[in-house]
Amino acid sequence: MDFSSKLLENAVYEMSQLPGIGKRTALRLVLHLLKQPAERTTNLSDALQKLRNTVKFCSSCHNISDVETCEICANPKRDETTVCVVEDIRDVMAIENTGQYKGLYHVLGGKISPMEGVGPQDLTIVSLVDKAKKGVIKELIFALSSTMEGDTTNFYIYKQLEGFDISTSTIARGIGVGDELEYADEITLGRSIMNRIPFEGSLKMN
Amino acid sequence: MDFSSKLLENAVYEMSQLPGIGKRTALRLVLHLLKQPAERTTNLSDALQKLRNTVKFCSSCHNISDVETCEICANPKRDETTVCVVEDIRDVMAIENTGQYKGLYHVLGGKISPMEGVGPQDLTIVSLVDKAKKGVIKELIFALSSTMEGDTTNFYIYKQLEGFDISTSTIARGIGVGDELEYADEITLGRSIMNRIPFEGSLKMN
Repeated sequence: MDFSSKLLENAVYEMSQLPGIGKRTALRLVLHLLKQPAERTTNLSDALQKLRNTVKFCSSCHNISDVETCEICANPKRDETTVCVVEDIRDVMAIENTGQYKGLYHVLGGKISPMEGVGPQDLTIVSLVDKAKKGVIKELIFALSSTMEGDTTNFYIYKQLEGFDISTSTIARGIGVGDELEYADEITLGRSIMNRIPFEGSLKMN
Repeated sequence: MDFSSKLLENAVYEMSQLPGIGKRTALRLVLHLLKQPAERTTNLSDALQKLRNTVKFCSSCHNISDVETCEICANPKRDETTVCVVEDIRDVMAIENTGQYKGLYHVLGGKISPMEGVGPQDLTIVSLVDKAKKGVIKELIFALSSTMEGDTTNFYIYKQLEGFDISTSTIARGIGVGDELEYADEITLGRSIMNRIPFEGSLKMN
């Protein structure tokens, strides 16, 4: 692409560094900002800068937070004996949205992935083991995505916690509520049959 | 969406104001920036701010430019008697990429669209008429998109230029090179038959 302005070219380049934003989309976004009042651009720039420079992570669960200890960890009504291990803060938001979970979280910050150069030391696993040592946690729920990397991470943490008196579980895999059986993949369908639950138990959930 | 941090919420909100970026995508982009070195965010913010605050438009063709008169208008090799009327600077870039056009441009900054509240006074039509009055322009090529708004804009400008000794043309509409006839829509195919060109003339273009 030939740009008539270096400033424009630079702005498009920086915008296109974001994931899933190509050069054409970046150009469209930048030209949109040019047509809007200058405050729009100032607000966007300031919000991003302020977040990047002053962002804090909860010292306990590593969720993004404006204060030292996040709202969830600081809430005395939450059950601190149950900790749900998730990959990133989007997963915390998704589980919080269900309104079903009353325990705490632990945000790993990723999954172990040798292909992408992410090892256990890049995640907050040490901090999780330290928390476990305190003896408060009774149950750990693995809620990582069901991929090779997710399974590896689950197993690595499971091994690290051997010897502690902590029960571990993973969230149920199965057919989504409202999904048709015929469109489910074989592995999911297979697992949902193997991990069937008592019908009477399922009645209570509704 | 419930955010654990006001700063994060604000950054996601500002990002989601961009066209085609929903809340989820905005969150993904913002979290990506958080994982990257802080310079990424600084560079992006600075590039956008700098562009927005110091952007100039060529005083002659209204293309984005870092200087008073853009490179194309300032180039003595370009044919100043031919002016191609386009909607925005992306169209200038697209036509420049073909390497086929040696005339100048006039960037309107949009199309007349009563539905979106865009009238002739919001575009650079007065400036185009002023240019026409100088008597240098001999041919005007309309290269607006082939929509109701594009056609309206073409016709409005055409009416404004009545009485000037300027020939007007529009870019050819027809079947794209490499396209299959059977997939073309009827209007395009119909126009391409009505506006057929001598076969010998088409041979020279290859």
